[in-house]
Amino acid sequence: MNIPKLSCPRIVIIGGGFGGLSLAQKLSKKDVQVVLLDKNNYHTFQPLLYQVSTGGLEPDSIAYPIRKVLKDYSNFYFRLAEVQEILPKEKSIITTIGNLTYDYLVIATGSETNFFGNKEIEKNAMAMKSIPQSLNLRSLILENFEQALLTDEMHERDALMNFVIVGGGPTGVELAGALAEIKKGVLPKDYPDLDTRRAQINLVQSGNCILPGMSKKASEKAEEFLEKLGVEIWTNTRVTSYDGKTVTTKTDLIFNSATVVWAAGVMGSTIKGIDAEELLARGNRIRVNGFNQIPSYPEIFAIGDVACIENKDTPRGHPMMAQPAIQQGKNLGENLVRLLDGEDLKPFAYKDKGSMATIGRNKAVADTKNFKFQGIFAWFVWMFVHLFFLIGFRNRAIVFINWVYNYIRFDREARLIIRPYNRDYSQFKD
Amino acid sequence: MNIPKLSCPRIVIIGGGFGGLSLAQKLSKKDVQVVLLDKNNYHTFQPLLYQVSTGGLEPDSIAYPIRKVLKDYSNFYFRLAEVQEILPKEKSIITTIGNLTYDYLVIATGSETNFFGNKEIEKNAMAMKSIPQSLNLRSLILENFEQALLTDEMHERDALMNFVIVGGGPTGVELAGALAEIKKGVLPKDYPDLDTRRAQINLVQSGNCILPGMSKKASEKAEEFLEKLGVEIWTNTRVTSYDGKTVTTKTDLIFNSATVVWAAGVMGSTIKGIDAEELLARGNRIRVNGFNQIPSYPEIFAIGDVACIENKDTPRGHPMMAQPAIQQGKNLGENLVRLLDGEDLKPFAYKDKGSMATIGRNKAVADTKNFKFQGIFAWFVWMFVHLFFLIGFRNRAIVFINWVYNYIRFDREARLIIRPYNRDYSQFKD
Repeated sequence: MNIPKLSCPRIVIIGGGFGGLSLAQKLSKKDVQVVLLDKNNYHTFQPLLYQVSTGGLEPDSIAYPIRKVLKDYSNFYFRLAEVQEILPKEKSIITTIGNLTYDYLVIATGSETNFFGNKEIEKNAMAMKSIPQSLNLRSLILENFEQALLTDEMHERDALMNFVIVGGGPTGVELAGALAEIKKGVLPKDYPDLDTRRAQINLVQSGNCILPGMSKKASEKAEEFLEKLGVEIWTNTRVTSYDGKTVTTKTDLIFNSATVVWAAGVMGSTIKGIDAEELLARGNRIRVNGFNQIPSYPEIFAIGDVACIENKDTPRGHPMMAQPAIQQGKNLGENLVRLLDGEDLKPFAYKDKGSMATIGRNKAVADTKNFKFQGIFAWFVWMFVHLFFLIGFRNRAIVFINWVYNYIRFDREARLIIRPYNRDYSQFKD
Repeated sequence: MNIPKLSCPRIVIIGGGFGGLSLAQKLSKKDVQVVLLDKNNYHTFQPLLYQVSTGGLEPDSIAYPIRKVLKDYSNFYFRLAEVQEILPKEKSIITTIGNLTYDYLVIATGSETNFFGNKEIEKNAMAMKSIPQSLNLRSLILENFEQALLTDEMHERDALMNFVIVGGGPTGVELAGALAEIKKGVLPKDYPDLDTRRAQINLVQSGNCILPGMSKKASEKAEEFLEKLGVEIWTNTRVTSYDGKTVTTKTDLIFNSATVVWAAGVMGSTIKGIDAEELLARGNRIRVNGFNQIPSYPEIFAIGDVACIENKDTPRGHPMMAQPAIQQGKNLGENLVRLLDGEDLKPFAYKDKGSMATIGRNKAVADTKNFKFQGIFAWFVWMFVHLFFLIGFRNRAIVFINWVYNYIRFDREARLIIRPYNRDYSQFKD
């Protein structure tokens, strides 16, 4: 990789997500060379992917060019590349565009969908962890309704209008709520020749409540909101397989569905070379110490979803969300400067800013350290927080306009099949 | 196709472009059944495709869901389908989703890129007539610069940063201007480790001036504006081939380029079944009479780009642009109502509202019947007219915000490679 060799130390960051970018920002104006690698040329604001899938937002408004974030920094190099292997002994990495040596390496690769080894579900269900995946889901949802018009067989039509969302965490809850609002506000007008009241939105959760990471009150209220919107909630229901037509569960419950979204788990996106048995914690995350350092490779760090700081407060690591990644990125950035200045490092201390999920218009739930609140106020806070953490003025303005428009008009205008998903519908015909 | 048979006449419209939609609007509240077919579920605002290609606009803001246009009309049926053949004797059509009979058929299929039979150019050059094509071009442009960073070979790097736009009509001129502005405003900041001054934008025109359809003054001024922006203009230069690496011309002039955009011609998108020799005019357009009717099939009509009304005022038909399509759609809508009421039809009379092209910030050229003007006023008029003809309040608002943002910040923020184009770069290495 033709990156000039400077006299200052080279810090290589893998991944331009929340963690990688907040780290990079801390290293501007320091006497280091920073090389940021990502397989995309943009940062993805993952918390709003479900709105891309449901036609509420355009993908370009939740993506931001990484080069633009770095444009005012000196000694910053971005390369569009995927890292294939880390060679810790040689302090170098192998990438799709050549090899590169490092003085310090930061793994900020985030997470990917965890299908828990079930190949059939992985093949047939939709994931929603990236913009192309979200656009595929958007195309599929719209194609299903177009397809439903082409058959007179009720069971086929029902399967095409039956949505199964597996996983009752924030992603599943937010997607279910958004689909329910489309069912109510958009479908009857778009498909007057289809009885869209028969469309079903099923939220399936293996545990005994939805939003298990939040308070009991939030969980109950979210359930109430979703039921009011017409979502069927199936708790204590573990999905066992999906062949593209039928979802089977541990009980005799089955769903015939053309659209299964798998939001039941994520796992760290590790890279070959450091994924040795002893280094990985639960969920394929890299075990790091309180400085986000891999104990056996002191010049390699991991932050965000892919990192797991196991201590007594967080025996399973921090939640795989934006906040820990942002905070770890900032802390590591300051620590790297301290390290180069020969100062003592400060261990990471997580400031829990709480968690939230939105269900629909005027309906959200929020837990903070001191307050737990639900309803319209939580919904306003949710919107404000998401606008605040979006990168870029243009993106904020456009997301804001879309939200105002969608709110006033009960609409979702980005219901466009720009690239068809081309699902095979033949299995729905007997 | 399961569309109910009503007692009123069935009018089938093929294509939801400017022509098809303005026709459909005239048929609302009339005692007819209207079936609109399109291979996309959205209307494309083609005049702004070049801004999608150059990262100035998101694709979703120039696309509009067709179902939403029709939502308040009764007896309207939209189907996502491609029409494969027309059977005029049986008054029916064959489509990808089944057959359908019609009482009246309107062909509003628009136009596609005309490669004039040159298969090698068709294979290797980029077209820009649809949203997916424009997004492919956007990805390719950005990928080229990422690729340019990976080589130290100057000739390879130059080829990757060398853009050749073939065709000096409005599309070619607007694309060349937009690329020149990116070169100036975006590239130096995004690629500090690349000498982007070496990037070249070549506009190649076979005739002796650019914008040949406009006034001499407009043509000259556009040339002046483009040259000021650093675009190389090659008039009287006919491109003969492009193998993916080298553009050859009729003279000994060649260009080594990774990106060739073919904007040198369009042709009508006709459908099997009526494309008999005697029915087609120059440019693959369907010959129709003054009522947009195909003389040998009185119940079949054609409007817009695909139709050619050959009379003494327009021996080669009307220009293949939005305005004739919109006006023919409206006139045909009124005529179909007259036809059903047993009244006399009114022949189409084109109101030429003039033509325009924008080159860059504060730089546009406009010709109207009485005035020809260039510069900042023309640029404001251009923006106003385009916002006016965009469909939907949300799209207008978002395009407007993008324009204001791009203007103030000299920026283009949608420079995102959402779906890589995956060009084969191996041919650029020796």
